[in-house]
Amino acid sequence: MSSLTAQLDAQYMARALQLARKGLYSTHPNPRVGCVIVRDGEVVGEGWHVRAGEPHAEVHALRQAGERARGACAYVTLEPCSHHGRTPPCADALINAGVARVVAAMQDPNPSVAGQGLTRLAAAGIAVASGVLEAEARALNPGFLKRMEHGLPYLRAKLAMSLDGRTAMASGESQWITGPAARAAVQRLRARSSVVLSSAQSVLADSARMTVRSAELGLDAELSALAESRPPLRVLIDGRLRLPLSAPFFQAGPALVITAADDDPRYKAAGHELLRLPGSDGRVDLTAVLPALAARGVNEILLEAGAGLVGAFAQLGLIDEYRLFVAGTFLGSSARPLLDWPLARMSEAPRLKITGMRAVGDDWQITAIPLPPGHV
Amino acid sequence: MSSLTAQLDAQYMARALQLARKGLYSTHPNPRVGCVIVRDGEVVGEGWHVRAGEPHAEVHALRQAGERARGACAYVTLEPCSHHGRTPPCADALINAGVARVVAAMQDPNPSVAGQGLTRLAAAGIAVASGVLEAEARALNPGFLKRMEHGLPYLRAKLAMSLDGRTAMASGESQWITGPAARAAVQRLRARSSVVLSSAQSVLADSARMTVRSAELGLDAELSALAESRPPLRVLIDGRLRLPLSAPFFQAGPALVITAADDDPRYKAAGHELLRLPGSDGRVDLTAVLPALAARGVNEILLEAGAGLVGAFAQLGLIDEYRLFVAGTFLGSSARPLLDWPLARMSEAPRLKITGMRAVGDDWQITAIPLPPGHV
Repeated sequence: MSSLTAQLDAQYMARALQLARKGLYSTHPNPRVGCVIVRDGEVVGEGWHVRAGEPHAEVHALRQAGERARGACAYVTLEPCSHHGRTPPCADALINAGVARVVAAMQDPNPSVAGQGLTRLAAAGIAVASGVLEAEARALNPGFLKRMEHGLPYLRAKLAMSLDGRTAMASGESQWITGPAARAAVQRLRARSSVVLSSAQSVLADSARMTVRSAELGLDAELSALAESRPPLRVLIDGRLRLPLSAPFFQAGPALVITAADDDPRYKAAGHELLRLPGSDGRVDLTAVLPALAARGVNEILLEAGAGLVGAFAQLGLIDEYRLFVAGTFLGSSARPLLDWPLARMSEAPRLKITGMRAVGDDWQITAIPLPPGHV
Repeated sequence: MSSLTAQLDAQYMARALQLARKGLYSTHPNPRVGCVIVRDGEVVGEGWHVRAGEPHAEVHALRQAGERARGACAYVTLEPCSHHGRTPPCADALINAGVARVVAAMQDPNPSVAGQGLTRLAAAGIAVASGVLEAEARALNPGFLKRMEHGLPYLRAKLAMSLDGRTAMASGESQWITGPAARAAVQRLRARSSVVLSSAQSVLADSARMTVRSAELGLDAELSALAESRPPLRVLIDGRLRLPLSAPFFQAGPALVITAADDDPRYKAAGHELLRLPGSDGRVDLTAVLPALAARGVNEILLEAGAGLVGAFAQLGLIDEYRLFVAGTFLGSSARPLLDWPLARMSEAPRLKITGMRAVGDDWQITAIPLPPGHV
């Protein structure tokens, strides 16, 4: 392949990724996918997947291209599907439209079907390629990929802390220590997630609703409307069913409550769902929570809770990413820790890769990814 | 003034600031100053101040320009001096050289002499201007300015912490949690300071020398040699003279020990200086430390100590800047705090402006500036 072809492939794939990103807040449980169709150096069709149950990116792009798709090249951020789901296989649609070449950013992440879409295209005489801007394409769908590859959702923990790593005063006194820009960033993290996960303790302490408030997202009207159309499921871990049904959290809409307690028909009657996942210690079995949510098609989870629940998930090695919102303040040496996670020796300290720090209004956001245990 | 002139002024001043920065590690107690002489759009002389007692930036630049200084414009990052110090006044040198115009980035920071150099130049018929890239010029000399304007040095506190704001395990177990790039950055912070300040407790715990190791600075040969020629004074706060004279700290060279204890002639005999600054509580009076060091011409202090001494200075509102080196690890909720500074209520929490976060190897550096009390 010539370097000019490689350069053009990357350029059109970058555009396809840009289109895919428009689905950030609405495609779940499906992945975000974009498609660009190019004929004789001209973009003749563009599309992106909007919502599950609606047409895939390829179908939108082919519709726009019409007859001009014949002999064209299709750039897709994910290998076209070859199976009948809620919509017919995109591989067939591309074959029927007469495209000459298909370039995918990455193969289907499900190991048992990876490559089948491209094979089907190749069998129909279409030139195929894969792996163009693959890292960028993977970064777009961390939850979908983790679920397909490992049967688990991608767990992102959000914490707001002071410069000295504290979340609240010893008395429990706590308030938004970060400013409006950081709060909007948290709203966008909620909106892109399939699930917002919290604990009865946090929700009780803050009278929290854990909803997405579209006016606070800081997005344009189109993306705000999309986010509103697919709000995340609010999931509460409440081992002993302490949060009353009269709480703002339950008044704000249907929720899923994961508990170790016996079933209580009042939850269902009030429009909520109760899921029993008791552990051997009489508390919720946190290791069972994630597979149970993955089985429901949950891709990304935003964990918003206190040092207790986040610390517990952290100790189990279940957190994929931390988003730390840092406010310019010291809460002092008697304030509450970031995570309830007592460690005696430095050799036990987990290592993380800090992948970024950026200003968010007057506050800063740190992104950190845990490294595998034993990493030096 | 035309916008073209303003643009050229800024351009030449930027070059003068670049030259001034070469003195970052060697001019103290003097300020870092650069000078560019321009005639008919051509740079005919450049200079920067290297070391106290040696010629000022203007003199170097005038020497290089020679006869071409006549009718030229001189750009200086600090108002030329008008008084006889260890060298003759630069204002006179500029007048004698016949320059036609002098542009200063800022006036002399000493309020009682500010503007006198420019007045002297103007009286000699030279066109003068001031305030070009003033913010950049001020940022270059935070210590010199603070000492001239407030009679105090600029106190910069360096701390190394985990992502959860901890500096060591509860047991006291502590080791470099940051990597070589962060250590080199700390070496450069030491080298640019007039004083490296620490506590007996920290130095004892780490067998620390608190020296500049020029091979670890990561600077080019010229700047490394300059740094080596003007090492910072190592100052130890040791209220009860606990650190033995056999400690590596004392073996590494002459030091200043600030104490609340009685004089002990063995320090002087070993080449060190003892300064008694007892407070009413029998400990060192920290509020007296900074004026005493300013009186000795100390511009910038790098405070490298544990949570105790840094917390004490912080509580007194004496810290001008924090440099937090953050390693990608959690030390956990039982580990030692960043600062010993117990606070009961959020209303007592100090506010800081986080002015930057940047990657330093695998670690990150956060710069934060305390805001005045009462800042919301």
